[in-house]
Amino acid sequence: MRLLAFGDSFVVGVGDPDHLGWVGRALAGRREITLYNLGVRGETSADIAARWRAEATPRLTDREPVRIAFSFGCNDCVAEGGAPRVAPSRSLLNARTLLTEAAAMAPVLLVGPPPVAETDVALRSEELNEHLKALAARLQVPFIDVFRPLAADGLWTREAAAFDGSHPGAEGYRRMAELVAAHPAWRAFTDAA
Amino acid sequence: MRLLAFGDSFVVGVGDPDHLGWVGRALAGRREITLYNLGVRGETSADIAARWRAEATPRLTDREPVRIAFSFGCNDCVAEGGAPRVAPSRSLLNARTLLTEAAAMAPVLLVGPPPVAETDVALRSEELNEHLKALAARLQVPFIDVFRPLAADGLWTREAAAFDGSHPGAEGYRRMAELVAAHPAWRAFTDAA
Repeated sequence: MRLLAFGDSFVVGVGDPDHLGWVGRALAGRREITLYNLGVRGETSADIAARWRAEATPRLTDREPVRIAFSFGCNDCVAEGGAPRVAPSRSLLNARTLLTEAAAMAPVLLVGPPPVAETDVALRSEELNEHLKALAARLQVPFIDVFRPLAADGLWTREAAAFDGSHPGAEGYRRMAELVAAHPAWRAFTDAA
Repeated sequence: MRLLAFGDSFVVGVGDPDHLGWVGRALAGRREITLYNLGVRGETSADIAARWRAEATPRLTDREPVRIAFSFGCNDCVAEGGAPRVAPSRSLLNARTLLTEAAAMAPVLLVGPPPVAETDVALRSEELNEHLKALAARLQVPFIDVFRPLAADGLWTREAAAFDGSHPGAEGYRRMAELVAAHPAWRAFTDAA
């Protein structure tokens, strides 16, 4: 199986000394899965929408099952010039387009954004997380919510505060990977049978 | 620092149960480095030449140092219809173009192909490895030769034989990562100072 993971710095695992991020950790031991980690720092839903298809093309194959995962949202909520980089309605439109187009190619899955420390970004992220969850349900795309469990746990945000304010270390990513890997939607998604 | 690694299945770490490959392992503990692993299964030097620039663009930044590593060759040497998928002269032309264009953007480094078990592919790969080394020297691009050390050691090819014939497991990738990480060229390449 080939798993393409598109998203932001949390997908690519910025700050993880092990260079695994949550995606690599969630696939530990699954050597039959080729992981294409296509997270890019700072990207919003609009940035991902602009590139994901071009980057998916050389990685798609008809020789084995393909899965496409997405995770984004935090960068949409970051303020730039007094307004979020991407307005919530636009984030949802981008998400709808992405998920619909990708679902025509392969099974897709959406992982919601992790929590961030900055209060206004955190509030907007939490709201966007809920909207993404509802959208995914309408599109019948499996959704994994990590926002509240990671926020409640506190480890993620503590590690992020100790590093660069946004990105955790090995333990934070491990915690997120545990949430993802234990979710029935992830198990179904990564099961080739 | 951001390190972009372009190449084939060995770069992306196919068969590695830890989803690190040699690149991830060679950067272990370097949490200040964002790794963009852009290896793609089955790709030749021509395939990489066709996509690397488009995939580099969203990952480049002027906010911190950038490095671009390449590693390819084995797929060029695989026979298709009685001839190698890419003729040696064409492989070298592709490599020259790639390295020259990338070097105009950021410091570059070339890692030679690892050994493969199939005899005719192995012979051609070994020859291509020598040609790539000579080309890199002419272009003043640092080159790391892993072919002979991995072939002599035997672990890489034993693990590959036990898996799918081409790709090793955690120990093979660890061995390659050790060769790369211990090389003065890699240390200089990944040193931001």
